[in-house]
Amino acid sequence: MSDAREMTWESFTKEAVTGTMPELMARLDRHRSLSFADSCLRGVGMVGFLSNPLTGLIMLAAMCYFSPWLGATVSVGVAVSTATALLLGLDQTDIRIGLYGYNGALAGAGITVLLAPEWDLGVLGYVVGAAAATTFVMAALMCFMTRTWGVRPLALPMNAVLMVLVVGLQQAKNGRLGPYIHPVNPSPGAKVDPTLRELPLGPGHDSVVQLVQAILHGISQLFFLDSTPAGIVFLVALALCSRFTAALALLGSASAVIASKLIGLDGFLVYLGIAGVNGALVCIAIGGFFLTPSLRSVILGTLAAAGSSVVFGACNAAVRVFGLPSSLSLSYCLIVPIIVVLKEMTPRIRGTELAATKGTVPERRVTVKQHY
Amino acid sequence: MSDAREMTWESFTKEAVTGTMPELMARLDRHRSLSFADSCLRGVGMVGFLSNPLTGLIMLAAMCYFSPWLGATVSVGVAVSTATALLLGLDQTDIRIGLYGYNGALAGAGITVLLAPEWDLGVLGYVVGAAAATTFVMAALMCFMTRTWGVRPLALPMNAVLMVLVVGLQQAKNGRLGPYIHPVNPSPGAKVDPTLRELPLGPGHDSVVQLVQAILHGISQLFFLDSTPAGIVFLVALALCSRFTAALALLGSASAVIASKLIGLDGFLVYLGIAGVNGALVCIAIGGFFLTPSLRSVILGTLAAAGSSVVFGACNAAVRVFGLPSSLSLSYCLIVPIIVVLKEMTPRIRGTELAATKGTVPERRVTVKQHY
Amino acid sequence: MSDAREMTWESFTKEAVTGTMPELMARLDRHRSLSFADSCLRGVGMVGFLSNPLTGLIMLAAMCYFSPWLGATVSVGVAVSTATALLLGLDQTDIRIGLYGYNGALAGAGITVLLAPEWDLGVLGYVVGAAAATTFVMAALMCFMTRTWGVRPLALPMNAVLMVLVVGLQQAKNGRLGPYIHPVNPSPGAKVDPTLRELPLGPGHDSVVQLVQAILHGISQLFFLDSTPAGIVFLVALALCSRFTAALALLGSASAVIASKLIGLDGFLVYLGIAGVNGALVCIAIGGFFLTPSLRSVILGTLAAAGSSVVFGACNAAVRVFGLPSSLSLSYCLIVPIIVVLKEMTPRIRGTELAATKGTVPERRVTVKQHY
Repeated sequence: MSDAREMTWESFTKEAVTGTMPELMARLDRHRSLSFADSCLRGVGMVGFLSNPLTGLIMLAAMCYFSPWLGATVSVGVAVSTATALLLGLDQTDIRIGLYGYNGALAGAGITVLLAPEWDLGVLGYVVGAAAATTFVMAALMCFMTRTWGVRPLALPMNAVLMVLVVGLQQAKNGRLGPYIHPVNPSPGAKVDPTLRELPLGPGHDSVVQLVQAILHGISQLFFLDSTPAGIVFLVALALCSRFTAALALLGSASAVIASKLIGLDGFLVYLGIAGVNGALVCIAIGGFFLTPSLRSVILGTLAAAGSSVVFGACNAAVRVFGLPSSLSLSYCLIVPIIVVLKEMTPRIRGTELAATKGTVPERRVTVKQHY
Repeated sequence: MSDAREMTWESFTKEAVTGTMPELMARLDRHRSLSFADSCLRGVGMVGFLSNPLTGLIMLAAMCYFSPWLGATVSVGVAVSTATALLLGLDQTDIRIGLYGYNGALAGAGITVLLAPEWDLGVLGYVVGAAAATTFVMAALMCFMTRTWGVRPLALPMNAVLMVLVVGLQQAKNGRLGPYIHPVNPSPGAKVDPTLRELPLGPGHDSVVQLVQAILHGISQLFFLDSTPAGIVFLVALALCSRFTAALALLGSASAVIASKLIGLDGFLVYLGIAGVNGALVCIAIGGFFLTPSLRSVILGTLAAAGSSVVFGACNAAVRVFGLPSSLSLSYCLIVPIIVVLKEMTPRIRGTELAATKGTVPERRVTVKQHY
Repeated sequence: MSDAREMTWESFTKEAVTGTMPELMARLDRHRSLSFADSCLRGVGMVGFLSNPLTGLIMLAAMCYFSPWLGATVSVGVAVSTATALLLGLDQTDIRIGLYGYNGALAGAGITVLLAPEWDLGVLGYVVGAAAATTFVMAALMCFMTRTWGVRPLALPMNAVLMVLVVGLQQAKNGRLGPYIHPVNPSPGAKVDPTLRELPLGPGHDSVVQLVQAILHGISQLFFLDSTPAGIVFLVALALCSRFTAALALLGSASAVIASKLIGLDGFLVYLGIAGVNGALVCIAIGGFFLTPSLRSVILGTLAAAGSSVVFGACNAAVRVFGLPSSLSLSYCLIVPIIVVLKEMTPRIRGTELAATKGTVPERRVTVKQHY
């Protein structure tokens, strides 16, 4: 992290496309506000596991382009949760790499789907409250889960906070609930239509094009978007920093979408990309981040992504009883700790040291293998 | 704890109004039955975090006055759960200060609302069974939660046991279910009436008087009562031993009631005091007991009490699916461990040593601060 | 484990009827496939806590006789989950005694009740997937629960996997759901008919014969059967290896059935044996396996089995909201850890060392008492 050297355009680019840009970080640390902005952008990137401000910046720009309201809520969310962590005096390094930002960013993004209308001050108030709450829950889960068992809370803080918020607000007059919030009892699958389609009751079509779209929607759903171009841009943003991570995201989304088709999950949800995003996150987490990257970790990640489709179906059915339209990324948060903790139980599953998963890209950790 | 000195009326009074009466405890320990009765009364006081038999006695007397059946179930509950702890051979000091009594007392109190009719032997049988079960759950959670993470089970044993009991008895012919038990699916908040009122469908009125009543009901709901005079008596009982605790109770209830009004929770539930009691308990626990008492702990407790209203709404919606009329104090039990465990994650949140939270009042611990 | 000595028919019989047959195990270890088959049969026996291949063989033979499809799914289930454990490189001894087999066997058995039709390749595919998943969940819970708190996951992996599977498949067109899967909201108990009967709406009769049948169905439900002869054969298979375990199973089932009758649970479910099997497992686990066998442990096990009926009712009501017909053995998995962990909290409850519970029968551990 020597910031003595001059930073050239070349060295900047090299940093940007090979990792987590520690030199830029050291430079920006001279200015408190730039440092904060950098932490926030890294928080946005951490939604895809990458503490890279450029990745975050591209993603945020794409969001602002595809949905300005989403761009606003994500910006507010990541800023509030990062600021809350600073205010609480939590671990400086964790805050700096964006660890306390991504759940806030996600809470902001999720609220654009769950609450309405757009640009409403009340809704923005809920974004602020939810983003601040994710930091408390994140810090608590870091103690409960990470210290005790060495597994990370992932997006559990966002899932917990948004679920509590939406279920709670159903009991409130000023709840600002969006149009998708209404309780549905689970019912046997006979009437499920697995055809990929854009609208719940609209006509569908199972072509390769729609399958590819469903897989890319799985990437865009990282920030609650169902947009093929957004999916491509997010993929580019991931690939800029780590080609491996981008490939795992695509592989995981494809694995989950195909498994969902095989068991015949509702084609509207699959086309929307909600099954895909859980698979993408499962595959990145297992294939590249918490296990030592290897062929085995990638196979395990891909299989787990396929299996996530059943868990996704179950979580969905369960939360719909309470009025939620989908289980967000809950299935991902349930599956990954079960697989990752196996590193403690068998020498055949090798884990990355927790410290090393923070602020590095998987490419850097492949060579670490022999130390285990 | 020298019981060699003569106990005078003056020293007795001084003890009673400044703490947890260790001298009286030492004196009563000479007689097994008096010692047991003292443990039980302390158990009643521990519902408000205060291991003071006089606080417990005043509260119990008030219950007997306002609802003799409540007085009976609480007496049976606290006696059974304390006796179960003795029979199991659990930690003597914990039993002696009432730690294994308060969940039994609460189980007894809760059953007066959940089961019916009054003075029924079958219902009393369920009180005995539930109170004994709280001791098993309390001891297990002390091992699971307190030993591993240093957080206390609070009223979780009572919440777990009563929820299991009421949901289970819906499947039973001899369930003795009260009139409030029926499953309700959550539904979006459009039709919620936030006007403070005495009956679910009755007329309401949002005046300062009703607001103050709602806040005081939050205190009386410590033992499942919705009574302004009972709230005042309970407040006096708390204040007798610890003015700080009484103030926190009032502050927390007010914070939760006002937040509930702001988001527009059902005015009947708010007037009933169920939102208030969760806020009161959150504020006492965070503001005075598990964090080192300070301006910061009080602010954090007050904010958490406000936030508890959303969590309360969510817990309510969730448990109503299973037939429960309200989520008891579940939201309080969920929020407090999340905040309290932060003491492990940041030097800005200072916790009271667990041993010190047992059988002392917050006033005594303010000066302990510098040791951290 | 000297396999140098000649194994005679006499020594074989003696081993078989007094414990876990270590000599046979050592002999079979010379051949990889026999060793695997032995592990699988022990896995079947471990459903009743007994790592004895003869117990497993008799049970499996009985299943094949009473329901060939059940015999097939159990065989596939136990083989897949054991093979998955080998593939993952989990602890050799644990695998060898059947610890990674019983949840797979149970998953196979449960699927015969939950999915349909019989002899369907799709359903068999779900058996394979579910059985493999139980091994991942088992290993993870061994780390989460056993390493941290010293309590065993019991049948939690099977319960978790089957519940997720069935709730998830309700959202899937190719879910192969059986006729019992449909969501039911809980409703107050007024209309519950506690008369013991064979059909949900059929006529019933509360005679001693039906009571005994209900108790024996509790044993046959170890593998999801409601058959008196199967119950008797399973009991004989348990008794062959450990008379104490068989007696505890009968005692626990009787205790739960009688308690269920007293509180008036649905007589169809009780006659089916689902209340009984939870009681039987609770009583074996507490009375003979995880606590040091003694009069006290048996009394505690019997009382806990009686209490399990209320918890069973609650779990049932809760899971029926999500479409499941019953809560499988979830109530057993919730109760036992709460009781067993008390060994850490009081000298009056003595636990068996975890290592000793693996692959021994309670009879062998009675004398171990004084070491605590």
